[in-house]
Amino acid sequence: MSINTIEQLAEAVRQFGRERDWHLYHSPKNLTAALIVEAAELLEPFQWLTEEQSHALAPDKREAVRQEMADVLIYLVSLANTLDIDLLKAAEDKLAINARKYPVEFAKGSCRKYNETEP
Amino acid sequence: MSINTIEQLAEAVRQFGRERDWHLYHSPKNLTAALIVEAAELLEPFQWLTEEQSHALAPDKREAVRQEMADVLIYLVSLANTLDIDLLKAAEDKLAINARKYPVEFAKGSCRKYNETEP
Amino acid sequence: MSINTIEQLAEAVRQFGRERDWHLYHSPKNLTAALIVEAAELLEPFQWLTEEQSHALAPDKREAVRQEMADVLIYLVSLANTLDIDLLKAAEDKLAINARKYPVEFAKGSCRKYNETEP
Amino acid sequence: MSINTIEQLAEAVRQFGRERDWHLYHSPKNLTAALIVEAAELLEPFQWLTEEQSHALAPDKREAVRQEMADVLIYLVSLANTLDIDLLKAAEDKLAINARKYPVEFAKGSCRKYNETEP
Repeated sequence: MSINTIEQLAEAVRQFGRERDWHLYHSPKNLTAALIVEAAELLEPFQWLTEEQSHALAPDKREAVRQEMADVLIYLVSLANTLDIDLLKAAEDKLAINARKYPVEFAKGSCRKYNETEP
Repeated sequence: MSINTIEQLAEAVRQFGRERDWHLYHSPKNLTAALIVEAAELLEPFQWLTEEQSHALAPDKREAVRQEMADVLIYLVSLANTLDIDLLKAAEDKLAINARKYPVEFAKGSCRKYNETEP
Repeated sequence: MSINTIEQLAEAVRQFGRERDWHLYHSPKNLTAALIVEAAELLEPFQWLTEEQSHALAPDKREAVRQEMADVLIYLVSLANTLDIDLLKAAEDKLAINARKYPVEFAKGSCRKYNETEP
Repeated sequence: MSINTIEQLAEAVRQFGRERDWHLYHSPKNLTAALIVEAAELLEPFQWLTEEQSHALAPDKREAVRQEMADVLIYLVSLANTLDIDLLKAAEDKLAINARKYPVEFAKGSCRKYNETEP
């Protein structure tokens, strides 16, 4: 089966867990722990690189990073399945919140929130 | 603009950063750091809960969790934009790898990989 | 050399890095990234366990956990060396802050801060 | 009480939890989750800084970092209390392992392990 949408991914992840009875392990608490473990595996190849080096990964490192990104997404989708959350709607709503928190005029070339002074 | 696909989310995230000149900050290294910080904010409301409690969040906690999930997704998409990675294809490929690592017969009701004994 | 105090550990860590010229890599930013990667390796063996199981680790898992705890401490000490921070004094000061945040009468059998209602 | 050794810190942390009946929450699993949440709060002020900037924190940021380092240490000591692990001995043993993994001649000015080629 080819996965072309996030809904298809959600269904594939749901079926993958169902076939293995992983609902026994996949409480929201455990899934968030698993997600951060994958996020750390994603950070690990970058930890000693300069920012510049991080833009130009060697092919084997890039593939490792790609797989860790996939793991993060899979756990995020699994958590969304469990909590019955629409990820795209959540992201859309959060971007609207962020647009208020980081007004263009204020945040341009900075990472300041509306209520912060320069770093 | 309504966001209905991960491609639309990728475009919205790209534009959000472009308007604020955030490419100055958004090196892959920094984005993976930001992603794990959000993953920790997602874990935080669960840390003292039992697994059972984690299934039944109060509405305000659930909304907070939903927003942290959105933050994780937004940084993941931003990283994918920067590294030019197709997230859905990466997840599809990783599920195929996982299917070999966790064969149904072997992993059913367990979290063992093919090469692991019981926990 | 035997290490019996945190000062001796700090000196051993300083010398270990100096012999390898690791000051080139060990910026505070990179050390905090390395620390969280180790914290995730510490969390990893617990992620699918119940809380009860987490109290009774098999000997090989316990030794792995012990080594990950050591890694976290080593990076924390390395960061303290770099930023010239007295870790024990910092912890003493933080416990005093926590004592105000979590008054005994209020926090007993709960994890509430002074300004929180029940979870 | 003044804290001058890691043993005194361990005792202070033990007493702090005992007064609040926190053993109910402080399973090893939960403590490792709490530790990584604090590690993320430690990483957070560095995430958008350059490595150079991370060496020269403003006084208020430095104090925040110092408090987050204290939180990481407090949870690490609490976990060591619960699992009955001697942190300094664990760190001493791990440094000996690291000395074999990163031989001076090989690792000098690099972060290579004995079995790795250049990044």
